[in-house]
Amino acid sequence: MEYEKPLFFHLMEYARGAEGDVIDMVSGDPDWDAPPEIGAGLREFSRLGGAQFQYPPSEGLLELREEIAVREGVNTENVVVTNGTGEANYLAMAAALDRGAGSEVLLTDPVYPYYPGKVDLLGGESQYVPVDDEGGIDPEVVRERASEETSLIVVNTPNNPTGAVYDADTMAELVDVAEERDAIVLSDEVYSEFDFSNTFASALSIDSEHRIVTNAVSKSMAITGFRVGYGVFPDELVENAKTRHMLVNVAGSRPAQYAVCRALRNTNPEYYEATRKLLADRIDAFADGLRRAGAEFVRPAGGFYVLARFPDFPGTMANTKRLIDEAGVAGTPGELFGTARADWMRFALVTPEVEDAARRLATFFE
Amino acid sequence: MEYEKPLFFHLMEYARGAEGDVIDMVSGDPDWDAPPEIGAGLREFSRLGGAQFQYPPSEGLLELREEIAVREGVNTENVVVTNGTGEANYLAMAAALDRGAGSEVLLTDPVYPYYPGKVDLLGGESQYVPVDDEGGIDPEVVRERASEETSLIVVNTPNNPTGAVYDADTMAELVDVAEERDAIVLSDEVYSEFDFSNTFASALSIDSEHRIVTNAVSKSMAITGFRVGYGVFPDELVENAKTRHMLVNVAGSRPAQYAVCRALRNTNPEYYEATRKLLADRIDAFADGLRRAGAEFVRPAGGFYVLARFPDFPGTMANTKRLIDEAGVAGTPGELFGTARADWMRFALVTPEVEDAARRLATFFE
Repeated sequence: MEYEKPLFFHLMEYARGAEGDVIDMVSGDPDWDAPPEIGAGLREFSRLGGAQFQYPPSEGLLELREEIAVREGVNTENVVVTNGTGEANYLAMAAALDRGAGSEVLLTDPVYPYYPGKVDLLGGESQYVPVDDEGGIDPEVVRERASEETSLIVVNTPNNPTGAVYDADTMAELVDVAEERDAIVLSDEVYSEFDFSNTFASALSIDSEHRIVTNAVSKSMAITGFRVGYGVFPDELVENAKTRHMLVNVAGSRPAQYAVCRALRNTNPEYYEATRKLLADRIDAFADGLRRAGAEFVRPAGGFYVLARFPDFPGTMANTKRLIDEAGVAGTPGELFGTARADWMRFALVTPEVEDAARRLATFFE
Repeated sequence: MEYEKPLFFHLMEYARGAEGDVIDMVSGDPDWDAPPEIGAGLREFSRLGGAQFQYPPSEGLLELREEIAVREGVNTENVVVTNGTGEANYLAMAAALDRGAGSEVLLTDPVYPYYPGKVDLLGGESQYVPVDDEGGIDPEVVRERASEETSLIVVNTPNNPTGAVYDADTMAELVDVAEERDAIVLSDEVYSEFDFSNTFASALSIDSEHRIVTNAVSKSMAITGFRVGYGVFPDELVENAKTRHMLVNVAGSRPAQYAVCRALRNTNPEYYEATRKLLADRIDAFADGLRRAGAEFVRPAGGFYVLARFPDFPGTMANTKRLIDEAGVAGTPGELFGTARADWMRFALVTPEVEDAARRLATFFE
């Protein structure tokens, strides 16, 4: 089994080994600073010791779950703190498949490659729904593809890798399809703080037992290494998720949970606003370079990835390496995200050198 | 599904709600101080920020894996850092069952209740091997019980709840049985720093592809809430474990891994020696109380739990609650650990009030 990470590493190693300097647009690690309250929270925690260093409640520190519940407008009992969105998605998929309402899982193509990996691990069967030209999803297409065997529909909004943001109508219709088919919509909203379109709608805005939402502060607070995420589960599924979480992980890491709880309470909206501004400026600069390079692309409505297709230069692994060697820009081949964007390349805008990368691409393709 | 933790919580809540003060001997949370390097490591980490706050390698920080490999005398490539021993055991069981060499899992009775919970989750079938009067295991009994369908033999040394420590001959014979049956021995050695018998032998002392060892610093450094453990997997199984770890959790929490790495490097043997001394003194005091109470018990050779059977007072949930109410001592009913010690109660010696508890039990039963 080879999933995104190993190929990512392979590419990053290749980029590091290349002659000349290479701008890394492969990894999804934020490059801006975490809120200062994160470091302050760790220092505060470090002096507590004793019982505070022992097991937190399996489902997460109560104060953290309460903080999340208020933000998401849900009951604390429905919140399970997880080891990042990664574990939250695993628990959500397992809870949906454990219902016994089918083994078929609908994913989009292009897809975030961890999703089919997790479905495989859980014994589900992945089916793919193509996205539209803008990278968005048409719920009618999902309705047509859904069958009696469909147990789960997985979406990611804002989307990695397309940059699409699903609006309130789309989310409501997706949940409708799930209800019709006795399935669950899993909405991975880890990029929710990076909505440039003002159209983002959480699946939590729809009152239904047929949706699970996962999220984390990994991207929004630039702490992917802390592994603090969460799932919001409907009443009927939350015990399943808590039990599996306990049996697999016992509990999440307490220092990280403590620091995140403090940072959630004390970080101003301006922090997130500044990141959105930074990313919007980078999107402008990168779009400008792509235009000059003659590339086809869709300006992302959210998140921090851009998919682009260059003229007569399909986004294969070989061409990705050529771009590293000859243009000094490292992207990710589209084939990592399924078949629908195999000719494209993905670029992550989490580097201060986006403008320079845009210039390099323009020069290379001009 | 109800496993150890919820019933533990139920009991601890009951104890907190009881009139008068109650000595908590239910939880397995160490009550001594973590090494000072743990707090110092968190503070050092808190100031790094930037790339250091992002995803660590999925299998764990390289320096931490190297540190563990040296201590265990194994290759770094065989070490996977996990979210505590809990996740390491889950990965180990999954790797053994994924080999396709049977679905039967041999556990001991009494058993640490998370084990059968994890076996259930993974679709395995638990079979129980009785322990001997001292709480130890006879490899010949395991050999008789093992069948063509046996894929995994799970042992815990030093043992929770019996306090038994398996010696080198026992471990070697268990690995022999595993080799004969094309199965895997999983040896959970999380209490390895608490061996009072000087007979503890890690399964790693036997050169074989048929054994997995799991461990953590959770108990030895009194940081159960940090969730830093590891598994040492043979070459044939390590990729399976790494892949599942990545798909379930992506990676472990970096602040905790960083602090543990620093503490492993800079904590003297005297730290562990002092804990052993503390626990040995507590065992003496508690054994004295149990004798005066007329209880049957086996002095633990390792770990920090004692199983005891009181005259005409079986260790049921009802009697456990009576002991809370009338003696002010909270233990755990033996029925939580299977059938073989259902008449017994378990007491965890991780409270500074062990002497007082011993006095209370002696007074109650005298």
